[in-house]
Amino acid sequence: MITLNAITDVPGFKASGVTCGLKKSGNKDVALIVADSLCHWAAVFTTNVFQAAPVVYDRTLLAKTGGSGLRAVLINAGNANACTGEQGLRDAEMMARLTEKAAALPADSAFVMSTGVIGHLLPMDKVEAGIALAVDALSPQGGTDAATAIMTTDLTPKAVFTRLPLPDGRTVSLGGIAKGSGMIHPNMATMLSVIVTDAPVSPADLDAALHQAANVSFNRISVDGDTSTNDTLVLLASGSAGGEALAGPALAQFIAALTDLCTQLAKMIARDGEGATKLVEIRVNGAQSEADALLAAQAIATSPLSKTAIFGNDPNWGRFLAAAGRSGARVDPAKTALWLATPQMSVQLVSQGQPLPFDAVALNGALKAATEAVITLDLGLGAAEVVYWTCDLSYKYVEINAEYHT
Amino acid sequence: MITLNAITDVPGFKASGVTCGLKKSGNKDVALIVADSLCHWAAVFTTNVFQAAPVVYDRTLLAKTGGSGLRAVLINAGNANACTGEQGLRDAEMMARLTEKAAALPADSAFVMSTGVIGHLLPMDKVEAGIALAVDALSPQGGTDAATAIMTTDLTPKAVFTRLPLPDGRTVSLGGIAKGSGMIHPNMATMLSVIVTDAPVSPADLDAALHQAANVSFNRISVDGDTSTNDTLVLLASGSAGGEALAGPALAQFIAALTDLCTQLAKMIARDGEGATKLVEIRVNGAQSEADALLAAQAIATSPLSKTAIFGNDPNWGRFLAAAGRSGARVDPAKTALWLATPQMSVQLVSQGQPLPFDAVALNGALKAATEAVITLDLGLGAAEVVYWTCDLSYKYVEINAEYHT
Repeated sequence: MITLNAITDVPGFKASGVTCGLKKSGNKDVALIVADSLCHWAAVFTTNVFQAAPVVYDRTLLAKTGGSGLRAVLINAGNANACTGEQGLRDAEMMARLTEKAAALPADSAFVMSTGVIGHLLPMDKVEAGIALAVDALSPQGGTDAATAIMTTDLTPKAVFTRLPLPDGRTVSLGGIAKGSGMIHPNMATMLSVIVTDAPVSPADLDAALHQAANVSFNRISVDGDTSTNDTLVLLASGSAGGEALAGPALAQFIAALTDLCTQLAKMIARDGEGATKLVEIRVNGAQSEADALLAAQAIATSPLSKTAIFGNDPNWGRFLAAAGRSGARVDPAKTALWLATPQMSVQLVSQGQPLPFDAVALNGALKAATEAVITLDLGLGAAEVVYWTCDLSYKYVEINAEYHT
Repeated sequence: MITLNAITDVPGFKASGVTCGLKKSGNKDVALIVADSLCHWAAVFTTNVFQAAPVVYDRTLLAKTGGSGLRAVLINAGNANACTGEQGLRDAEMMARLTEKAAALPADSAFVMSTGVIGHLLPMDKVEAGIALAVDALSPQGGTDAATAIMTTDLTPKAVFTRLPLPDGRTVSLGGIAKGSGMIHPNMATMLSVIVTDAPVSPADLDAALHQAANVSFNRISVDGDTSTNDTLVLLASGSAGGEALAGPALAQFIAALTDLCTQLAKMIARDGEGATKLVEIRVNGAQSEADALLAAQAIATSPLSKTAIFGNDPNWGRFLAAAGRSGARVDPAKTALWLATPQMSVQLVSQGQPLPFDAVALNGALKAATEAVITLDLGLGAAEVVYWTCDLSYKYVEINAEYHT
C-alpha cells in the first residue's frame, strides 16, 4: 500500500521533516525518524571506493554495535558530505552526537545519512539548528514530511506501507521511504532508504533478510549507470509487535513482504529517474545463468541508445540486441527472441535471431500513450531469468545534470 | 596532416562517393576505394556477439586469404545490414561479388562494410546501381567523396594523411578515413575506418601493427558506451612504394606513424560524437596497472553525470571521482589528485583526497570558452597511465537518438 506517512504508520515510530537552509529552494532538507524503543537494525551500503563520511560513520557503528541499540535516523539533503576529507568525518560524527543529544537518546543510537552535492563541507551551524527543529517537530504523523525532506532531484516522495498477518496470529507492519533519481546503479543500495518495522527479528536474520531483499530490488535498478558515494539502505526493527523473534514460515513471510516493499520503492526510484517519461522493465529469460541474464539486462538498462529510443517512442529494437551482444553474457544470435510491450500491446520483433514484420506505426503510437514499457529478451539457452528496471533518457536528464551544480 | 583527399593522396589508390538512395537525405551513401594492385591487408572487427553480415563476410575472407590479395573496399551508409539473418549474409556476399564484377577485379578481392540502421534488409537493387555508379566515378581525387559518403550522424568527414621518410631513404604514405559518432565504445574497432598505404609490409606484420595501433586509439574512445554490431577497421598496404618489406627500425617507424594516424582519426570521432560540444581527454596516471588506469578512465568517459557536467561547463568534480570509485580500479581516496583543464587554464581540484579551494566562476568561464577539456586523475599508487577520449553529453545527443529511426 502506498501511503506517504508509511514510516509513521508503523506503531512506535515518529518522524519529522524541516528546513535548515541546505537546499537553495528553501524546501525541507532535514528528516528525522525516531523509534520509541531500542531497535535491532541492518544496513546495506554503497560499493563505491569513495565512501561518503556518513557511510564511513555508519559502517563503524554497525561493526561496533552488532546491529543492536538504534533509536534514530537523521538525514540531510542538499549536501552529500562526500569527498570532504577528515573534516567531513568529524562532521558526520557530530551529526550523530547532536541528534542523540537533542533527542535525549543513548550514545551510539543515531544513524546518519547525507545526499546532495559532492565535495563541499557541511555548514554545521545550519545542520545543528536543523536537528533541533527536527526533534521539536517529531510526530506520529510526520512520515510524509520525512519522505519529502530527503528528496533532491526527485519529483515525488517515495513511501510504501504494508501490514503482514503472521501464521501465529500476530500482525506486524513495515513502512519505508526512499529517495533517488540520479547516480542510481546497483551493486549497492543505489539510493537512500529507511525501512522500519515493529516485527521482532534478530540482528543476524535482519541482516540476511535485508541483503536478500536488496539484491532483487534496489540492486536491479539503474537510472544512469553511476554509482553514488552515499547510497545507504537501513532497516530498523523495534520488536514492539511483541512475541518471540520471527523464525521459520513467519520469517519467510517477513522476508517476502520486505522484498515486495523494497521492489515497490525501487520501481518508484526508476520511474522517477531524472528526466524520465517512462518506467522501463527489462525481462531477460532463457539465459544459461542468472549472471548472464543480469549482464544482458544491465547492458540494455544502461545503454544510452536503448534509453533514447524508448524516449523517442521508437521500436528501434536493434539497439536492445546490440546492447545484449556486447554485455559479455553468453548469447547465440540465432536463438534470440525479442518482444516490446506496453500496457496496450505486446509485439514480438525477433524470432530465432530473424527480424519479424510488425506494425511500427501502431507500436510507436502505443509507446507514445504509455508510461511503462517492457522489453523481453529470450536468449533461448537455459532457464535463468532476471527482471530489471530503468527509465528512458530524455532532454530533461541532460538539463538536470548540466545545470545542477554551478 | 588533415586532408580530406587523404585516401587518394596515397599513390596507387582511387576512390569515389556516390548516391544510390539509402539515405533519406539524398546525400552520398556509397563509397568505393580501389587499389591499382593487389594489397596485403589486416582488419579489426567489433567484439559484439551480434556481428553484422558484412563483418561475418569479411572475417571469412580474412581467414580464407590470410590477408593477401585485396583490391577494393565497398562501403554503404544508411543501412547496417545487421540482425538481418540469412538473407543479410547473402546480401553482404552479393555486395562483394557485384563490386568485383563491376570493377573487373579478381575473386575474393573486395571487402565490404555497412553502417546505418539495424534490422532492415538492404534494398539490393539500389546497392547494385550504387556500385555501378561508384565504379564509374573512381578517381585519383575521389578521397573526399569517399570520406563524405560513409557519414551517418557525423557532422564532419574524417580523414588524415601522412608521409613518412624511412631510415633507408624510401618514403611511404598513409591515408585514412573514418566515420562514427554514435554507438562508439572500445573493445573493438568502434566505427568504420579504411586506411591505405603504399608501404610494403607482410600480412603478419600488418596485422600486428594494426592491432597495436587500434589498441591505443580507436579502442580508447567512447561516445556512449554502446558497442556497434558493424565496427570495422581495415588497412590495405599495396607495397607500391617499392623495396623489401619493412623490418626493424623502418617497421617501428611505420607502426608509430600508423598509431599516430589512428589516434588522430579516433579523436576526430570523439570530437564529432553525437551532439558533442567538447572533446574530453581523460588522463589517468599513477595507477598500479594499465588495466586499472583503463577501468578508471573508461568509467569517467562513460559516466552520464560526468559528461553532462562537462556539457554544463560545470566543474562538479565529485562526479569524476565517484565514477573512478565505482570502476573496479584500485583506488585509495586519500592518495588521489585531480585536475581539470582547458586550453586557457588548468586547475587542481583535489590533493591527497581533500578538496582544494578554487575559483569556480573562472573555471566555468574557461570551460564555456573551450571546445576541449582535459580531466587528469592521479591515483598516486604506481606508474601506469592511459589517455582516453570522449565527448560531453548534450540535449542534441538525446534528440539525435530519440528521433533517428521512426
